[in-house]
This record gives sequence, structure tokens and C-alpha cells, in this order.
Amino acid sequence: MAKPARKTGGTANASEDTSQPKTARGEATRKAILTAAERVIGARGFNDASIGHITSEAGVAQGTFYIYFKSKDEVFHELVLEMGRLVRRELSQATRDIPNRLDAEKAGLTAFLEFVRAHPDLYRIVQEALFVDQDAYNAYYQAFSEGYRKGLEAAVEAGHIRPGDADTRAWALMGISRSLGERLVIWGDTTPIDEIVATVHDMIANGLKP
Amino acid sequence: MAKPARKTGGTANASEDTSQPKTARGEATRKAILTAAERVIGARGFNDASIGHITSEAGVAQGTFYIYFKSKDEVFHELVLEMGRLVRRELSQATRDIPNRLDAEKAGLTAFLEFVRAHPDLYRIVQEALFVDQDAYNAYYQAFSEGYRKGLEAAVEAGHIRPGDADTRAWALMGISRSLGERLVIWGDTTPIDEIVATVHDMIANGLKP
Repeated sequence: MAKPARKTGGTANASEDTSQPKTARGEATRKAILTAAERVIGARGFNDASIGHITSEAGVAQGTFYIYFKSKDEVFHELVLEMGRLVRRELSQATRDIPNRLDAEKAGLTAFLEFVRAHPDLYRIVQEALFVDQDAYNAYYQAFSEGYRKGLEAAVEAGHIRPGDADTRAWALMGISRSLGERLVIWGDTTPIDEIVATVHDMIANGLKP
Repeated sequence: MAKPARKTGGTANASEDTSQPKTARGEATRKAILTAAERVIGARGFNDASIGHITSEAGVAQGTFYIYFKSKDEVFHELVLEMGRLVRRELSQATRDIPNRLDAEKAGLTAFLEFVRAHPDLYRIVQEALFVDQDAYNAYYQAFSEGYRKGLEAAVEAGHIRPGDADTRAWALMGISRSLGERLVIWGDTTPIDEIVATVHDMIANGLKP
């Protein structure tokens, strides 16, 4: 696209530079700071959240923050990466033993919505990454769309779903998950997840079956 | 949800307060400022865009901005409202003479993707509204989901689609459009829109038909 590049925060490789804690206590402190940052940035947004808010929420001295992270940008970047890792792990665990793709879609959608309902702040942080740290945002969605595309291609090969462009289908299905996740997080929807999934899976399964 | 309210910019009723230009020339200037703001905020993001950037892009003096808008928040709010108005008009024109819901879904998806490809900056601005002006963001999606829900309920009544929870389906279908729109805007996808729509409509039509 011919448009000026947005500021990406310059933190693309930040996690490689971070001092990794050497002790169990150090690891616990780092984790406490990340958990506090998730809550504070999720609730206030990146610009209004300060390092002081984060350390106060974590119950540590402000100087302690800088032992583990260089900046607010870096902790934000780490949270987006963590959301990606956690969601991919949840989805892979939820779908691992399910051979049929349509059944796996259903289990994956359920696992995703349960994760998002349990981690509303992480969901908001990933959405805000488009405006704060576009490298992290791109990496998050690229990893998902790649995996999704390959899974759909394999399912067409196996005859589990009928032929159709895998990349476009992957973005459409990701869009369904994301929108239903947002309905839980931003709109406070309280419909039981199994009811949401039953409605949507009826559409997806009939829409994709051979 | 039990979480602190985000800053919403306090501009929910801003457009009512704005001085409305009385002359055609005034209207043209106001429009030039809005168009410039769309480009500048879309490219730089809300925080990095300044009123100076906007007036420089519009080719007007900085003081002229304040004849029409109180603040950057107010011009942002107005852009989100405008995106809503324009998209609703496009969709209603594209689907007006189509009696069958499934055909209307296809025409609506096509019109939406064409609009988004032509207005990438407006698309980004609506997404950023979640973090800058949540009232405007909510109003945008509420208007869409309400209209969508009613349309799907009527289609079930008419026997054009099979029964199913209209609200959940509305969010799922909105998610498909949004994700495919984002693929065009953020990822620079160049697939022809009719090919994208053909793939996705195959899934939607089979997923919803009676």
C-alpha cells in the first residue's frame, strides 16, 4: 500500500534483548509485572497506562520494573506475543485428538471463546497493537492465518470439507471468532458459549461440508 | 463488566455542538478538513496526528480548523460517524432491490469490501475508535448489529434462511466482513473482490439456506 508507514514502536526484537531472570523469584516477579500490565493496559489503554500504574498494581518498586523490561513498549510487545502463544496452545490442545476438521472447528471456536472470556484484557491489547506495535499485531495474525490456511488445505485434501480458497476461508473464519470474542469482551455478552458455538457451527459446518 | 471505564473522549454529543457552516464555501472548507483528517489520522494514528498536520494537508490556516471543529477529538468522532453513515448508505443502495436475503448478503459483502478498499483510512479510524472514542465505536457497531439482526429475523420469517439465533449470526457475519476488509486494508491483499466474495458466499449461502 502506498501510505506512510506507521510507527511500530521499534520493539520487534525487544524480547531477545530483555534480561531473563535467573532465579525462580526473579521469574515470579517478572510474571507479576506482566500480569499487572495486562490488567492496567487492558483497562486504561496503552497511552493512559503508566509504568507507575503497572508497578503499583504489581506491588513492586518502580525501579524493579526496569530490571525486567526496558520500557512500556517492551512490556506491551511481550503481552501481544504471550496472547499469541497462549491462544495457539489452547487451540492445539483443544483440537489435537480430533481427526475431522469440522469437529475440530467447533472445538477450536469453543476453546477460543472460553480463553477470550477469561482474558478480556489480553484481547483488547492485541486489538490495540494495530496502533501501538504493528509488528507484533502482524506477527500475531500472520501466525494464525498461516496455520489456519494449512489446516483447511489439508482438510480439502482429506475430503473433510469441500474445495474452496483456503486463505480467504481462513480470514473469514478468523473473523467469526474475533467478532464473537469481541462481543464477549467489549459488549459484555453473557450468552453461554455452547449456545453461541451451536448457532455458528451450524452455519460453518453446513457451509463447508463436502 | 467489572472494569474501570475507559476514557471515551467526552465527545459523544460533539457533533451537535459544532458550528455548522452557513455557506457553500464554508461547507467545502469543512469537507476539505475532514478529508485531510481522514488521510492524516488513518496514516499516522490518532496520537501522532496533530491539528497542524491536518490543516497542512488540507491547505488551510491552523486557525481555520477551529472555525469548524473544537478539537482533534471532535474531528475524529465526526469521521467515525461519517464512516457509519457512508457504509450504511452503500449497503442499503446495494441491497435495496434484492428480495432474497442470501442474494442480498452477497451484494452487501461486495459493496462493503469495495467501500473499504476505496477508504482504507476510514477503516483504520473505526478500529482505532475502540481506544480513542469508545462511544463512537459502540454506536458504529450497535447500529450495524441491530440492523443485521432485524434483517436476519425477517429472512427466517420469510423462509429465506433456516432458523437460528439472529444476534449471534449477525456478529458472525459482521466478523467475516470486517476480517476480509482488514485483509484488504492492513495486509494489502490484492485478490479481486468478486473472487473473495464467491469463496465466502459459497460458505455463507450453504451455511444459512433452509
